[in-house]
Amino acid sequence: MVSKASEHKKDSIPYRIGKVVLDTSLFVNPEVRKYFGETPTEALEGFLFLAAQIPILEFYMPPSIFKELLHFVNKDKISGDLLVILHQKPPSKYEMSCPAFLLYELIEDIRNRINKGLRVAESAVRTVGKKNEGEVIQELRRKYREALREGIIDSKEDVDLILLAKELDALLVTADHGVIKWAEKLGIKWLFPEKFREFLLGSIKKAKQIYLIEDKDRKNQS
Amino acid sequence: MVSKASEHKKDSIPYRIGKVVLDTSLFVNPEVRKYFGETPTEALEGFLFLAAQIPILEFYMPPSIFKELLHFVNKDKISGDLLVILHQKPPSKYEMSCPAFLLYELIEDIRNRINKGLRVAESAVRTVGKKNEGEVIQELRRKYREALREGIIDSKEDVDLILLAKELDALLVTADHGVIKWAEKLGIKWLFPEKFREFLLGSIKKAKQIYLIEDKDRKNQS
Repeated sequence: MVSKASEHKKDSIPYRIGKVVLDTSLFVNPEVRKYFGETPTEALEGFLFLAAQIPILEFYMPPSIFKELLHFVNKDKISGDLLVILHQKPPSKYEMSCPAFLLYELIEDIRNRINKGLRVAESAVRTVGKKNEGEVIQELRRKYREALREGIIDSKEDVDLILLAKELDALLVTADHGVIKWAEKLGIKWLFPEKFREFLLGSIKKAKQIYLIEDKDRKNQS
Repeated sequence: MVSKASEHKKDSIPYRIGKVVLDTSLFVNPEVRKYFGETPTEALEGFLFLAAQIPILEFYMPPSIFKELLHFVNKDKISGDLLVILHQKPPSKYEMSCPAFLLYELIEDIRNRINKGLRVAESAVRTVGKKNEGEVIQELRRKYREALREGIIDSKEDVDLILLAKELDALLVTADHGVIKWAEKLGIKWLFPEKFREFLLGSIKKAKQIYLIEDKDRKNQS
């Protein structure tokens, strides 16, 4: 790829701009954001600092996900760079389509989970008397959520992420296993947030190489 | 439409063959099958008797639905006409697609139902002690199914029906409210099974008119 740079027009970047779609988990999940900063606000700033040095990448977030993010960060501390670097774009949901066989998979998955949820509920009813009611309800909630919601796309925010990444042919950065499962089905590139800082550092290096090559080309020409 | 018949080639039927996709409820649901016969087997025979007189219609059933039907009918009593009149065709699920915005609707619907299911389960736990455990479980099952499965497409058989009707641009005959809801979203013609016998009788009449006209045309020409 690098060797072809000189064949292109000299004043523009001769590389296809890569696109990246970000989930909130990157800044919110403590296990993950630690690579960028202590708090969500610091993590977001840490990301912006790196992202600003990578003209070969564009960063996107669906507005629904961005809204979630704003609940966690101190808006006053975030610079205006945010709006320039992190593009808010909803997917074109009325123009896009999804392969029909995925409907089967989604509906079979949900059907199994619904049955599992009923078994969880029945077993909770049978435990009353052996345990205190409050405890039984706590456990019911935990197990029910586990059965019905983990590892599945279960919100419009999840669908937004998947469709936007598909539409933009972008790299999707998320820790959500349900979202990753669908990314796999739909041929969407994805990356665990744990690896994202390294990815950005590598991209900074690549961007510098490209500009060095361009500079050299320009000097050779003149 | 009738007046255009004479412009067409004389030896073929000059009308577009209408296609109809059938759900099992037509033959299995007692409220519905009564228009065709007392038992599922009689209802199926009653349908075949009428359908055989309508060369302007083709009848289809996804194999998954046909398999369901076979659980209810006495196979020995059904004539070979069945296989000629009622075509078994699965939808082309790897070629078809569904509009992405429907994913949002499906997932939002399921999310609400999952939350409702948890409330049903919690309230069951709280009733133990006031009622006998067996009763509580019975009620839990009923209410849970109501909350999670009614009015929603919840099986691959449902998806088969919808996609096949869409693929064939067919009239979908079903009593399932979840399936009808999706037919509405996808622009699929649908009919309640209660009206289906009348529809067939009307089609017999129409088929006869067409053939009379054709006959007349043929005599006028010769």
